[in-house]
Amino acid sequence: MNREQQVLDRIERVRRRKATVREERITLAHGAGGQATHTLIEAIFLEAFRNPMLAPLDDGALLTLEGERAAFTTDCFVVSPLFFPGGDIGDLAVNGTVNDLAMCGAVPRHLSAGFILEEGFPVADLRRITASMAAAASAAQVTIVTGDTKVVPRGKGDGCYITTAGVGLVEQPSALSASAARVGDAVLVSGPIGEHGAAIMLARGDFDIEAPIASDTAPLHGIVAELLDALPGQVRTLRDATRGGVATVLNEVARASEKAVILEESAIPVRPEVTGVCELLGLDPLYVACEGRFVAVVAAEHADRALDLLRRHPLGGDAAIIATVAADPAGLVLLRTAFGGTRVVDVLVGDPLPRIC
Amino acid sequence: MNREQQVLDRIERVRRRKATVREERITLAHGAGGQATHTLIEAIFLEAFRNPMLAPLDDGALLTLEGERAAFTTDCFVVSPLFFPGGDIGDLAVNGTVNDLAMCGAVPRHLSAGFILEEGFPVADLRRITASMAAAASAAQVTIVTGDTKVVPRGKGDGCYITTAGVGLVEQPSALSASAARVGDAVLVSGPIGEHGAAIMLARGDFDIEAPIASDTAPLHGIVAELLDALPGQVRTLRDATRGGVATVLNEVARASEKAVILEESAIPVRPEVTGVCELLGLDPLYVACEGRFVAVVAAEHADRALDLLRRHPLGGDAAIIATVAADPAGLVLLRTAFGGTRVVDVLVGDPLPRIC
Repeated sequence: MNREQQVLDRIERVRRRKATVREERITLAHGAGGQATHTLIEAIFLEAFRNPMLAPLDDGALLTLEGERAAFTTDCFVVSPLFFPGGDIGDLAVNGTVNDLAMCGAVPRHLSAGFILEEGFPVADLRRITASMAAAASAAQVTIVTGDTKVVPRGKGDGCYITTAGVGLVEQPSALSASAARVGDAVLVSGPIGEHGAAIMLARGDFDIEAPIASDTAPLHGIVAELLDALPGQVRTLRDATRGGVATVLNEVARASEKAVILEESAIPVRPEVTGVCELLGLDPLYVACEGRFVAVVAAEHADRALDLLRRHPLGGDAAIIATVAADPAGLVLLRTAFGGTRVVDVLVGDPLPRIC
Repeated sequence: MNREQQVLDRIERVRRRKATVREERITLAHGAGGQATHTLIEAIFLEAFRNPMLAPLDDGALLTLEGERAAFTTDCFVVSPLFFPGGDIGDLAVNGTVNDLAMCGAVPRHLSAGFILEEGFPVADLRRITASMAAAASAAQVTIVTGDTKVVPRGKGDGCYITTAGVGLVEQPSALSASAARVGDAVLVSGPIGEHGAAIMLARGDFDIEAPIASDTAPLHGIVAELLDALPGQVRTLRDATRGGVATVLNEVARASEKAVILEESAIPVRPEVTGVCELLGLDPLYVACEGRFVAVVAAEHADRALDLLRRHPLGGDAAIIATVAADPAGLVLLRTAFGGTRVVDVLVGDPLPRIC
C-alpha cells in the first residue's frame, strides 16, 4: 500500500469515526484536548446540550443581547454526593446560576459550564449529569452555549465539579441590592426552608436517619419575574437562600443596608420532617441551604400583595412574611423566639454542612 | 450585663471587625458561606479585584453592553504546579479567557472567577494568585466582576482550581470560525510554539533538566484587534494554540472546514531551548501548549500583510506563515518534513502533558 493509499484510508477512517465514548471511566486523555476530548464533547456534551450556539465548538459563543443591561454571575458546585433525592449536581449547577441571575432581576439567557472531572469518573454518571443539566436548562429556558472540561488525576478531585456562569438580560432597570432595605420593609421567604441541605445530609448516609426529604432545587426566575412585574420599584432585595441558609441572607441584608432585621421565629416556614432531622443533627434550619427558595425585602405596604402573589405560584405555596427591617440594632439580625425571648442570629462560624452545593 | 447591653456590645464588635484573614491555611469554613467566607472575599478577592461592579457582592454583576453582539466563554484551570516561570494559575486563568474572547473577535470586557480551593491551601498563595489575576486583568483591560469560592476537603482537590468565564463585545460582526477556512488560505502562527508546555514540564521538576524557558502566557486581544482592523473580512479563523498545541488547532480547522491543512515543518517557529527539551522528553512541539500564541487562517492575498503586521507587534515578533489550506485530503493535516517526506499530523491520543493549563 503506497503512501497515498494510506492517507486515503486514514481519511475514510476519520470520516467514519462516530463520536462514541467507548470507555466506561474518564481518563486523563479525556482532558488532554485531543481525540478523546473531542469525542467526549461530541458524544456527551453536544449530545445533551445541542443548540446552534454551542455546535460550532469555537472558543466562545456569540450572543445577541437585545438589551443594553446584562447580568453576569458564576457559581462552583462541589456537592457531595453528586446524586441525591430531588436532584443532582447537574440541575443544581443550572438552577443555581439561573437563580443568581434571577436575584439580580435578570431574565436568564445563556450559561457556560466548566467541568473538572477526576480520572476514573464513570462516563455513565457524566451522561446522567449532563442529561439533568439539559433538562434543567430547558425548564429554565436557558441555553448552555459554551464550556470546558479538564481532567485531574485520581485523588486530586472528587468525581465531578461543575462551575457554571450565566448571562441574563435586565429588562427593567432596578436597584435590587442587599443594601437597599429600608426601615419598615417586610422580609418574605418564598417557601419552607432547609430542604436541600437536609436532603444532602441524609443522602450522605452518615446518619442512620431516613426521612422523606428531597432537595428543593428549582429555577426561580419565573416566580421572581411575576413579583417584579406586579410590584415595580417595591422590591428592594432578592437573595436565594443557598449556602448558609436564610440566616446568612438576612445577615447580608442587615450588614449591607446597615439596618436591623427582626425575625419572628413562629413565622418561619419549616416542614416537620426538616425540623426533625435538624434536631437530630443539632442544626438550626435557619442556616441550612435551600436551592429553590428566596428571600425578598419588600416595601411594607406591598407585603401582603407580594405574599399573595408568591403563594399562588407553584414554587411559593408556603411563602411567609418572616421579618421586618428596623433601624436598630443596625447590622444585626435579631430573632424573637416563640417564647418571647430575643437572640442575635449571627453569621455562620465554621462549616457545619460542607459541600452542600 | 443585661440583654440589651450584650446586644450593643455585639454591635460594636461587629462594627470594629476588620476584614483580615488570620488563618494561614484555607479551612472548610472559608467555603461555608459564613463569616470566614465573607472575610476571605473581602480581604482577598475584593482587595485584589476592587471595582465598582464587584463591590456590592450581590449574586451577580450588572453589565452595560453598548453593542448588541456579545461573546461568552469559559475555561477551567487545573495547572500543576500553580506557580511556574513566566506566570501562575492566576494570570493563566485571566489570559486564557481573554484570549478565547479575542479568538471570537470580541473585545474582552468582564470576567467571572470561580475558585475551588482545597482545605489546607496556603492563604499566602491565594493572595499571590489573586494579585497576579488582578495584574493580568488590568493589563488586558478587563474587570473581574463576579465570583464564587468553594472549599473541598483535603485530598479532594489540589490546592487551587480556577474557572473563569468572560463576556466581550463584538464590535465588528464577523464570521470567524474554524469552519471558514477556504482552499488557498494561508495559516499563520503568531510566534514560537510550545513554550508554555515546556515551562510547565520543567517546573514540575520531574526531569533533571534546566533550561531558560518561561511560559508565553499573554493577553492576545490587542494583537488580534490590530489584525482584524487591518484586514476586515480577510481573517477566516483565529484559535489560540493552548492544550494540544498547534497540531490540535490545525486538526480542528481541517475537520470543521472539511479541507486539508498542508504544514511546512521548516516554517514552524520553535525556539532551540524548546526543541531541545521536547527532544529530551520525547514530545513533538506541535502538540505542546502555548498560552500566548494563536493560529490565524487568512486569505492568501493578504497573508504577507498579516505577517508583517504580526511581526511588528511585541507579542508577534517571530510570527510565521506555516501552512496552506488545500482541498485534499479533506479533514486531515499533512506535514511536509524538512527532508521532503509527508506525514499525517493526527490529533492527540492519550495525554502526554496532563494539567498543562
